[in-house]
Amino acid sequence: MNENAWKLAAEAVKRMIEKGYRVATAESCTGGLVAATIVGVPDASRVLDVSVVTYANEAKVKYAGVSEEALRRFGAVSQEVAAEMAVGIARTAGAQVGLSTTGIAGPGGGTPEKPVGLVWFGISIDGTVVTFSKIFAGMERNEVRQAAVEEILRRLLELL
Amino acid sequence: MNENAWKLAAEAVKRMIEKGYRVATAESCTGGLVAATIVGVPDASRVLDVSVVTYANEAKVKYAGVSEEALRRFGAVSQEVAAEMAVGIARTAGAQVGLSTTGIAGPGGGTPEKPVGLVWFGISIDGTVVTFSKIFAGMERNEVRQAAVEEILRRLLELL
Repeated sequence: MNENAWKLAAEAVKRMIEKGYRVATAESCTGGLVAATIVGVPDASRVLDVSVVTYANEAKVKYAGVSEEALRRFGAVSQEVAAEMAVGIARTAGAQVGLSTTGIAGPGGGTPEKPVGLVWFGISIDGTVVTFSKIFAGMERNEVRQAAVEEILRRLLELL
Repeated sequence: MNENAWKLAAEAVKRMIEKGYRVATAESCTGGLVAATIVGVPDASRVLDVSVVTYANEAKVKYAGVSEEALRRFGAVSQEVAAEMAVGIARTAGAQVGLSTTGIAGPGGGTPEKPVGLVWFGISIDGTVVTFSKIFAGMERNEVRQAAVEEILRRLLELL
């Protein structure tokens, strides 16, 4: 984890405390790194109760309430699944803010339509969900994951 | 995350694949960093389906099957709760290996009996749980968490 991500997380935690928000994450490609970065902030217990690494498709369904239809129609790395993960984890955790990541960190798993480095993100705040994607090209697996953590925290700050 | 932790995780993933084991984590003070380190290994999907950051006590009960009695009698940072978290997350995830961390990363929260830097760990393999604790003295919050990740992965390797 790097300094940028820490700073973004610290500012996001501060703003969520001010707003009385709690946050939960449902992470696939980042594997818990978004939650771990938030928990790195000393005040994290004031905003985060629970987060889930939903790496397998079944975990996305069971723990984040993702529909099997969305997984089948659009695939795990898709706007629809990112949206359902963010909304679903916020609901099951009883949090105002839900964050999700689902992507292809590599080195394998890429296709022409969904290349290595593609990550879909979801940010649900008070039931309204924003999704966006980014292709982190030319990066190694863990660079993709670290860049994804910074990206979602940066967008979260813009939305808070 | 650092090189040592990556290497330990890569070796642990390799051995778990050989043994046909799956792994799940229930993390408190490490906040998802154990799972994130495991997911850093390209073959992680062959061993990890789901992991949970059970930061709040209610999350430890709901997601990792920790008993309210253990929390009340021994506190969240205790051998008993670490054991229940490891066993519980393995059971709910359907994994052979369950890993847990619960500790006081600081800067606040320490007491004479449970100082800042104290971390209890649980490693459940095929239903047998090993617990151990360590006091990471003189470290900052995120150094404690990183050291805790290395510690549990090192002990996991000894047990695999």
